[in-house]
Amino acid sequence: MMLSKKDLIENFPILNRSIEDKKIIYFDNAATTLTPINVTNAIKDFYDYHNANVHRGAHLLSNEATEMYENARKSIAKFINAKTQEVIFTRGTTESINLFVYSIGKSDWIKGKDVLITTIEHHSNFVPWQQLAKTFDFNVIYYNPENGIFNLDEFISNITEDTKLISITGMSNVTGQVIPIREIINYAHEKDILVHVDGAQFVPHFGIDVKEIDVDFLSFSGHKMLGPMGIGVFYGKKKLLKKLPPFHYGGEMINWVSIENTDFAELPEKFQAGTPNVGGAVGLKAAIDYINEIGMENIKEHSKILTDYAMKRIKALDFITLYNPEDSSSIITFNVDNVHPHDVAQILSDKFGIAVRSGHLCAQPLLTQLGTKSVCRASFYFYNTEEEVDKLIEGLKFIKEWFK
Amino acid sequence: MMLSKKDLIENFPILNRSIEDKKIIYFDNAATTLTPINVTNAIKDFYDYHNANVHRGAHLLSNEATEMYENARKSIAKFINAKTQEVIFTRGTTESINLFVYSIGKSDWIKGKDVLITTIEHHSNFVPWQQLAKTFDFNVIYYNPENGIFNLDEFISNITEDTKLISITGMSNVTGQVIPIREIINYAHEKDILVHVDGAQFVPHFGIDVKEIDVDFLSFSGHKMLGPMGIGVFYGKKKLLKKLPPFHYGGEMINWVSIENTDFAELPEKFQAGTPNVGGAVGLKAAIDYINEIGMENIKEHSKILTDYAMKRIKALDFITLYNPEDSSSIITFNVDNVHPHDVAQILSDKFGIAVRSGHLCAQPLLTQLGTKSVCRASFYFYNTEEEVDKLIEGLKFIKEWFK
Repeated sequence: MMLSKKDLIENFPILNRSIEDKKIIYFDNAATTLTPINVTNAIKDFYDYHNANVHRGAHLLSNEATEMYENARKSIAKFINAKTQEVIFTRGTTESINLFVYSIGKSDWIKGKDVLITTIEHHSNFVPWQQLAKTFDFNVIYYNPENGIFNLDEFISNITEDTKLISITGMSNVTGQVIPIREIINYAHEKDILVHVDGAQFVPHFGIDVKEIDVDFLSFSGHKMLGPMGIGVFYGKKKLLKKLPPFHYGGEMINWVSIENTDFAELPEKFQAGTPNVGGAVGLKAAIDYINEIGMENIKEHSKILTDYAMKRIKALDFITLYNPEDSSSIITFNVDNVHPHDVAQILSDKFGIAVRSGHLCAQPLLTQLGTKSVCRASFYFYNTEEEVDKLIEGLKFIKEWFK
Repeated sequence: MMLSKKDLIENFPILNRSIEDKKIIYFDNAATTLTPINVTNAIKDFYDYHNANVHRGAHLLSNEATEMYENARKSIAKFINAKTQEVIFTRGTTESINLFVYSIGKSDWIKGKDVLITTIEHHSNFVPWQQLAKTFDFNVIYYNPENGIFNLDEFISNITEDTKLISITGMSNVTGQVIPIREIINYAHEKDILVHVDGAQFVPHFGIDVKEIDVDFLSFSGHKMLGPMGIGVFYGKKKLLKKLPPFHYGGEMINWVSIENTDFAELPEKFQAGTPNVGGAVGLKAAIDYINEIGMENIKEHSKILTDYAMKRIKALDFITLYNPEDSSSIITFNVDNVHPHDVAQILSDKFGIAVRSGHLCAQPLLTQLGTKSVCRASFYFYNTEEEVDKLIEGLKFIKEWFK
C-alpha cells in the first residue's frame, strides 16, 4: 500500500519541515533514510517503560526487554528468511563487515588464499579487506572495471584457483548499479567459493531471501531502511558461523570464563559481546513492520518508476554528466558542468529545500574509475515523488543559469 | 539538586509503573540505568526533525545532524575534561575495550611483553585480553586476589620488568569495591607503564577528570549513566591515540583510498568507521546534561548515604551472605542462605516489584574467588531511596520465611 502525501507528512515529520518557504525534499536516502514516527515511538516506549538489560535477569523489566529484543531478531529473521540464530546484531554494515573480516581472518579459511573484491565497493567493503590482508595473511584480488561499470564475465575472469571468498556489494552506493549476485553466488558455489554480500543498499530496495538466493554471508544496516542508527545485521549460514571464531569478546558471548580458558556461547550470542542495543533493535523491528505494511513489491515498483522518470528527465539536460549505467536503481549520480558538486548541493538545499549528497560518497576507488573526485547524488526511497524530481530538475536548471 | 519523588516519577516513567499493586523499585542500575524523558525526547526530536548522516553533507539536515553529533562529543569531553579529539564514540564499554586490545595488539607496544589485569574484572575487561594474547603475542598476568578483594600492595607485587600495560576496573560490578586507580596510575607511570581504566561502573558514580588523574585510556558506556544503549566512549591521550593503529575500517575513518593503500583520517575519525550512532550520541549528551543538573557531588553523597544505609540494614539480617568489602559503593551483592539467587530475584520482582539482578554478573573469575557461582545484586543510582531499601529488607525477610 503506497501512502498519500498527507500520510507521508504525518508519518515522517521531516517532510513537513521547510527551508525558507520550500518543503524539504529528502534525496539523501543512500546515506540514511528518514524514520517514521512508529519507529521513534517504539524506541521511546522501550526506554520510557521497559528499559532494562537483557538475558539472565529474573525481574519483570529485564524479561520484557529480553522479549522485545528477541522479537526484533525474529522479525528480521523472517524478513530475510533466515533462522533466528543466524541473525547477529551489529552496529551497522561497517561493523558487520569488520566482524566478518576479523573473524574469517583469524580462522584458517582464507590464510594464504585469495579473496576477490571489486573497486565499486563502498569503503566499508574495501578498506577492511585491504588493511587486514596484512594482519591475517590473505591476498586480495581487486576487480577494477573500466568506467566503474560491473561486468559479470570480466568479474568471473578474476577468479583464481586459490579464490576462497568473494565479497561484493549487491548494489553500488554511487551508480545504483544492481549487481547480479544470484549469478555470482551460483558460479562461486560451483567452485566451492563462499560469497559475502554487502546489502547496505540492496536490502532496503529489494529485500532478500537468503535461503532462496543461497548467500553465505550478508551485511546490512538498520538506518538505511527506516530504522535508527547504531543497529545493523550480520547474517551467516549457521553451519558456517559455527566454524568462525568470535570477534568482540566480553559479557553475553561466553558460557564459562576462568583464568585458564573461556568457553564461548552458542549462536547468535557468540558474536554479540556486551550490552546489546535493545532500543535500536526495537526500532529496527518497527521499521520492518512499516516496510512490510507498505510492501516490498510496492517499494520495488515505485523505485523503478521513479528512477526511470528521473533518468529520463536528467538525461534531457545538456549540462549534466551522468554516472549511472542503465541497470541502476534509486540513485542518480551526476555533476553539473563547471560547477563544484558541493556548490550544487548547497544551492539545492538553500534555494530549493532539496537534500542531495556531494563528495566522494565513501567510494574513492570507484570515483577514480569514473574519472572524478567528487559527485552529486540524489537517492530515492518510497516516500519520494515525481513532483520532487521535477523540483530537482528545476533546481539544476537554476544552478546552470546562476553559474553561467 | 536532588529530586523529589514527584519529580523522579515525572522524569523516569518506569518509576510510575507497578507490578501488581507495588510501584517498581529499580535496583539493577549496575546493569543499566533508567533513562529520563529528556533523553528519550532528545532522541525522538533528532530522528523526527533532524535525522541525516553526518559530515561531508552540504544540505541543511546533514549540517544539523553533524552539529548535534559534535556537540555531544564536546559535552562528553567537558564532562571528563578531555580534548574533543580524544573522545571516540563506540557502542559501549565492551567495544571500547575490544577496540583498545585489537589496536594496541596490532601495534608493537606490548608484543612479547606483559599486560597486568585482575580477576575482579567484568568479562569485558578480561576475555579480550585472555583471547587476543594468542593472536597478538603478548602475555597476560592475572592478579587473583584471595576472597576477591583487591589489595594495592598485592596488586603491585605482580608488576614485572616486562609489564607495559595495566588494564583495571575503577569499581567492581560485583562487590562495588572502589579501586585506588589514582595510586595505581601514579605507581605505573613511575615505571613507564600505561594504564587503561574500565570506567563502566566508576564514571557514572564518581565522574572522572582524566587530566587530573592522568589516566592514559578510559572506557565507559552511555547506558549505565542515563543514556541510551548502543553508545559509549573510548578515551585516550591524544599523543598515544595518534600512535595506535585503527580498529574498524571503512567510511569516515579515511583521508584517501586507492587500490594500493589507504591514508587514515585524523583523530577522532581514525577510530570511528561507518555511519555513527548520532541518535545515541544526542541521547548521551542529554544524559550528561541531566547528570550535570543533578550535580556529580550530590550523586556521590547520595550514593554514600544510601550504600551505608543498605549495608547496615542488610548486615543486621542473620540469613544473608554479603560479598561486599567495606570500601564498596552503590552495590550490595549477597545470597540468601539456602535459596537460589534466581528465586530470590524472581520473588522480589513478583511480590515486591523490586528489580535486582541474579547470576554470575559477567564476572565468573571473581565469583570463583568469592566461592560461589551465582549471587543477587542490588545496585543503586541517585533516584533510589532509603524507603526502597526498607522494602528490599522486607522482601528478603519474606523470602527467608517462605523457604523455611
